Amino acid sequence: MARTGRRPGQTQTRDDILVAARRQFADRGYGGATIRGIAAEAGVNPALVHHFFGSKDQVFVAALNLPFNPSLLVNTLLEGPRSEIGERIVRLFLGLWESPDTQLPFFALVRSVTTSPEVADQLRQFLETAVLARVATALDLPPLRLTAAASQMMGLAVVRYVLRAEPMASASTDEVVALVAPVIQHYFTA
Amino acid sequence: MARTGRRPGQTQTRDDILVAARRQFADRGYGGATIRGIAAEAGVNPALVHHFFGSKDQVFVAALNLPFNPSLLVNTLLEGPRSEIGERIVRLFLGLWESPDTQLPFFALVRSVTTSPEVADQLRQFLETAVLARVATALDLPPLRLTAAASQMMGLAVVRYVLRAEPMASASTDEVVALVAPVIQHYFTA
Repeated sequence: MARTGRRPGQTQTRDDILVAARRQFADRGYGGATIRGIAAEAGVNPALVHHFFGSKDQVFVAALNLPFNPSLLVNTLLEGPRSEIGERIVRLFLGLWESPDTQLPFFALVRSVTTSPEVADQLRQFLETAVLARVATALDLPPLRLTAAASQMMGLAVVRYVLRAEPMASASTDEVVALVAPVIQHYFTA
Repeated sequence: MARTGRRPGQTQTRDDILVAARRQFADRGYGGATIRGIAAEAGVNPALVHHFFGSKDQVFVAALNLPFNPSLLVNTLLEGPRSEIGERIVRLFLGLWESPDTQLPFFALVRSVTTSPEVADQLRQFLETAVLARVATALDLPPLRLTAAASQMMGLAVVRYVLRAEPMASASTDEVVALVAPVIQHYFTA
């Protein structure tokens, strides 16, 4: 039978791993940190890190409290017809920013990235390795086009949710999709 | 003969006006602040504010140390053929971000906007009133399209200069123009 909760000792171990992970990612960057190094810093067996989190990118998502899971993101991009990928991305992204669960972590992330060069550097390596490289391979696209698409989505978030500039802040999802989805589709068409 | 420098008393008066302007913009927002109110707060004649700065948007540019002048920006957009406006905007913007004089103030602005809701609010009102409304009128374009174009340019700055995500960070100006100028042109074509 599956356990329905974590025992106190497990929660403590998981927290220790996250503290160790934050330190390792800060010291070595996303690329330099390893499951083995994080386990050593936390004083646990590497198998336990795998048990709690699965893979390095999942440790990173938990350690930085990221409001999205890159594996789910990549799956969503690849499901459905390629000709509608622009609309799929814009709708997914607006949904994440407008959901109460993910909006505050997103704001925190934007603040960290723009005020801390270390966090910006960790996130850059993570996006390059765990998100952009995967999508570029899966879709057979030049990575430059993916970073351009990412830039449009990030800028949209800044104008609509951080600056709240009108009329973008009050535009409906459908209006934003009609305007921006063709742009994402342009970047995803080599 | 033109004077080649400011006398000490003039510099002091100019600084007093800027201090008063920062307070008025913070208290009332860009829309609520007036030249008359700024002059009263600084204890000077409104004519002196006009003498030093010209218009309210110029006071705002000086008070917030903005790395661009919206009047010059608008002029650049409107000069030259409409069919090349996308390329003109992307080249102008990359030039501002890559110039040593304007890059640091841009970084400071990005940090302020993402960490201070007050600064974000002032800048939002300023962009809506002094930049977007003017360009929308001059080009007879729906303001929503302009905010979408602005979102692409801001996001490009975040990915290329703040996050420095590769391969966007190292791409040449011509590569970026080839990829992004058609997007800006799309937004500027109703």
